[in-house]
Amino acid sequence: MIEFWFDFGSNYSYLSVMRIEALARRHGVTVTWRPFLLGPIFRSLGWESSPFLAQAQKLRYVWRDMARRCDAYDLPWTVPTTFPRRSILPARVTLLGAGEPWIGEFCRQVMQINFAADRDIDGADTIARVLDRLGLPANDLLERALSPANKEALHAQTARAASLGIFGAPTFFVGDEMFWGDDRLDDAMAFATRPISS
Amino acid sequence: MIEFWFDFGSNYSYLSVMRIEALARRHGVTVTWRPFLLGPIFRSLGWESSPFLAQAQKLRYVWRDMARRCDAYDLPWTVPTTFPRRSILPARVTLLGAGEPWIGEFCRQVMQINFAADRDIDGADTIARVLDRLGLPANDLLERALSPANKEALHAQTARAASLGIFGAPTFFVGDEMFWGDDRLDDAMAFATRPISS
Repeated sequence: MIEFWFDFGSNYSYLSVMRIEALARRHGVTVTWRPFLLGPIFRSLGWESSPFLAQAQKLRYVWRDMARRCDAYDLPWTVPTTFPRRSILPARVTLLGAGEPWIGEFCRQVMQINFAADRDIDGADTIARVLDRLGLPANDLLERALSPANKEALHAQTARAASLGIFGAPTFFVGDEMFWGDDRLDDAMAFATRPISS
Repeated sequence: MIEFWFDFGSNYSYLSVMRIEALARRHGVTVTWRPFLLGPIFRSLGWESSPFLAQAQKLRYVWRDMARRCDAYDLPWTVPTTFPRRSILPARVTLLGAGEPWIGEFCRQVMQINFAADRDIDGADTIARVLDRLGLPANDLLERALSPANKEALHAQTARAASLGIFGAPTFFVGDEMFWGDDRLDDAMAFATRPISS
């Protein structure tokens, strides 16, 4: 089992959301989807927003790096005109649906709205359309996603991320072993399927 | 040709210093060694020292990540008791010797003193011993390394790194294409040997 911690606003999370389910299938590993909010984590670490924004050189490099990675992975890519995008509503829906068979496809569609279509992902209309396309009861799910209990559950999940030592996304856990960044997804998968020494 | 920008105090530079010459040989690529100082770059970006030090969680993760990478690459590894170590003298010697056939071995030995033996790398005695082991005229090289002209040349090289948009190390350039981090060394090599489209 691999725990997959990510934020829909995070560009490197986009790469992992698009890749993880096929990789996990190939390795026979179960994915546990753990949406959380990077904003409160970054603020607790002393950054106002994404650390990429603090340095123009770094942001410029990140977009070039993303274009190359998406090319290598055969993924669509558009530099987002808003970054990082607000991602609270899709995170709340993902928290509700984390154990459902449709969760991977839901997350991929939301990520593509952000990083391929370059549109906002936090509007109820946008998320309802995605749920509808998946044949799901959009109104019912949105109502539950917006409930105080689910709002509180996302806060608790983000607090848990902080307590686990997560400082960025994507982050993967296999047991207590932490892997940070899309560049470590393959290592995390290999670790999840390592032979257990006796 | 691949330009290899690195700092002897940088742990991810250690991985690339140890790997790059064999990789380049396999690919038929020439390495141009570009030592520089990360300290002035970090300060210009608003950090007092390595950004890893600003966050205890991140530093803890980096050491775990380094142990795993060194294991994968079959490299010795010791968490440095001083980090980042002062690296001015070996950088000055590397600047002098950048075009010499011994430069790769010199850099590997200095890096192993830092990240395997966990000892300081900025003392004249330490660097003289490395040069001596390589059969080089240590006193003469150290004298030239410490000359005002060479000191100025290292400042100029660091200023050039900043003007190229370098914000960390290791950084690789193939022409104008920039690659940041040991994780991108293989991509940079592949880019250096790509077929030129007509």
